[in-house]
Amino acid sequence: MSKLDIKNGLIEMGHGSGGRASATLIEEIFVRHFDNELLNQGNDQALFSIPAGRMVISTDGHVITPLFFPGGDIGSLSIHGTVNDVAMSGATPLYLSASFILEEGFPLADLERIVISMAKASIDAGVPVVTGDTKVVERGKGDGVFITTTGVGIVPDGINISGDLAKPGDAIIVSGSIGDHGIAILSSREGLQFGTTIESDSAALHTLVAEMIAIAPAIRCLRDPTRGGLATTLNELARQSNVGISIQETSIPIKAEVKGACELLGLDPLYIANEGKLVCIVPAEDAGQLLAAMHKHPLGQNAAIIGNVCEDAQQMVVMKTAFGGSRVVDWLAGEQLPRIC
Amino acid sequence: MSKLDIKNGLIEMGHGSGGRASATLIEEIFVRHFDNELLNQGNDQALFSIPAGRMVISTDGHVITPLFFPGGDIGSLSIHGTVNDVAMSGATPLYLSASFILEEGFPLADLERIVISMAKASIDAGVPVVTGDTKVVERGKGDGVFITTTGVGIVPDGINISGDLAKPGDAIIVSGSIGDHGIAILSSREGLQFGTTIESDSAALHTLVAEMIAIAPAIRCLRDPTRGGLATTLNELARQSNVGISIQETSIPIKAEVKGACELLGLDPLYIANEGKLVCIVPAEDAGQLLAAMHKHPLGQNAAIIGNVCEDAQQMVVMKTAFGGSRVVDWLAGEQLPRIC
Repeated sequence: MSKLDIKNGLIEMGHGSGGRASATLIEEIFVRHFDNELLNQGNDQALFSIPAGRMVISTDGHVITPLFFPGGDIGSLSIHGTVNDVAMSGATPLYLSASFILEEGFPLADLERIVISMAKASIDAGVPVVTGDTKVVERGKGDGVFITTTGVGIVPDGINISGDLAKPGDAIIVSGSIGDHGIAILSSREGLQFGTTIESDSAALHTLVAEMIAIAPAIRCLRDPTRGGLATTLNELARQSNVGISIQETSIPIKAEVKGACELLGLDPLYIANEGKLVCIVPAEDAGQLLAAMHKHPLGQNAAIIGNVCEDAQQMVVMKTAFGGSRVVDWLAGEQLPRIC
Repeated sequence: MSKLDIKNGLIEMGHGSGGRASATLIEEIFVRHFDNELLNQGNDQALFSIPAGRMVISTDGHVITPLFFPGGDIGSLSIHGTVNDVAMSGATPLYLSASFILEEGFPLADLERIVISMAKASIDAGVPVVTGDTKVVERGKGDGVFITTTGVGIVPDGINISGDLAKPGDAIIVSGSIGDHGIAILSSREGLQFGTTIESDSAALHTLVAEMIAIAPAIRCLRDPTRGGLATTLNELARQSNVGISIQETSIPIKAEVKGACELLGLDPLYIANEGKLVCIVPAEDAGQLLAAMHKHPLGQNAAIIGNVCEDAQQMVVMKTAFGGSRVVDWLAGEQLPRIC
């Protein structure tokens, strides 16, 4: 097999042919960096043993722009995003697949940089990429690289977490400051500086979730507030569970620089995407102990109780503002920040 | 939630926001047509029970152009392609995920037509789409719709099928005529007519595989010769198993109209993509009985033994031609038909 010129080479249509050029690309970039026994089998599928039980599957396409941003890139994001979607059921993520749609002319060096970052995120999370696929589209029919990852995981016995299980009286916890990811992408896109560089919070939350369900197995709902932000996630949960939600603005953790950037840009941090945060709904009696456990985990240090579930046939999310008033927090309408993940 | 104008509407950036417009799109197109209990849970992941055993996972991105072609469309193809990749391990496919990358301006009516076709293919195969994701990219940054599907399945006890298990002396079977898919796409793309309309062979092969492993549990390798065609699949298997492969041109099933089209266009049918065919390597003593069983299945009626595995440290695929000579059948080099799947 001919060698790739990773330093200077570009993606060509032949890399998607399924023939020799595809095989070379797969070996020299994907297999080389993802390097694990299951992927190395070289079949069109990966085979592994599983115990009897409950499995979850989740998938996410990633089309973020720019591909590289403060705190991560499309590669690490594509691992974190799907690990998190699996973990939000309480499951232990086991394996990932990755599908790449590459644009003709995309630099091989950028692809390798992304794959190295993906491999690192995957190894750090302990969730290997065991199978994949690569397609190439003509110049002008894609945008560099799109990555769809799919993950599977096993839900521990006794854990029942779903968006439709919130009950009036439950407490609502957010695991840390909101808005970091969206503001990091926006400032990187527009070349804006807000004193310091705001970094994306992109992170894999499954170890935090494991500690949370060990302390509070009665957790009802977990969801990561990505596109649409905290506001949209709370509205989704209110609708699925047919409840109302009441939150306090002053309880919501937000970094000063993110708050400042939002004020400057006229953005509402409640609608800004996060990639390393979760929302948890838990029986009120478990909330204190759970919060204390979250504070001991690096990704939950700034966790806070931000409100509670209430009865409301209208399924409204209402926020007590810092000024003592209250306002309805609606679903995100329109598109605030396109291609944020 | 506002209603979609499916008849006249177009995909807008807001449909990828994660907010209200996304929720409307998901409900009125995806949930409505895929309609199954797991998807309807409305979580970011789907949960199901599994037995202890061996599972496979496989993923495929679909970027075919045109989106609609004789014998199928990107929707049905995206189901068949991944069901087949799962089935090529001998597994019973259980569930699918689907990730859509939509281009701004794509007609909602076309999207619905594709999703209806996907849903039909999925229901016909008995393999539901249980979770998904939708992203939208700006006009000119995509090409209508790309669909990545991922499938999981369970491998029955006693079945061990992998590309590295072929042994000298084994027989090689192909399940039917080659080249139909590629020629159907090409003729539809170029507006060519070859007497009759050549249809894609796009089909889900898992029921054929189930009957094959019931008769011949010692099957060593199964693979669907998609991109790169039969020639590339045989080369992959020869390399993985470190063997040579010998085939007879006159034994390879090919429809007269596909053969004619290939001659007219100067294409080699060995390199043309298939989407409803498989290659099987099986101990020679099982080949006759297996072939008889395949002939009883609608998707195996034209199955044929096309050659055998031999010792060859060079891992060559050699074909005895119709004229009595022999030629090396190499990997596909370059790109014959871009975006064929």
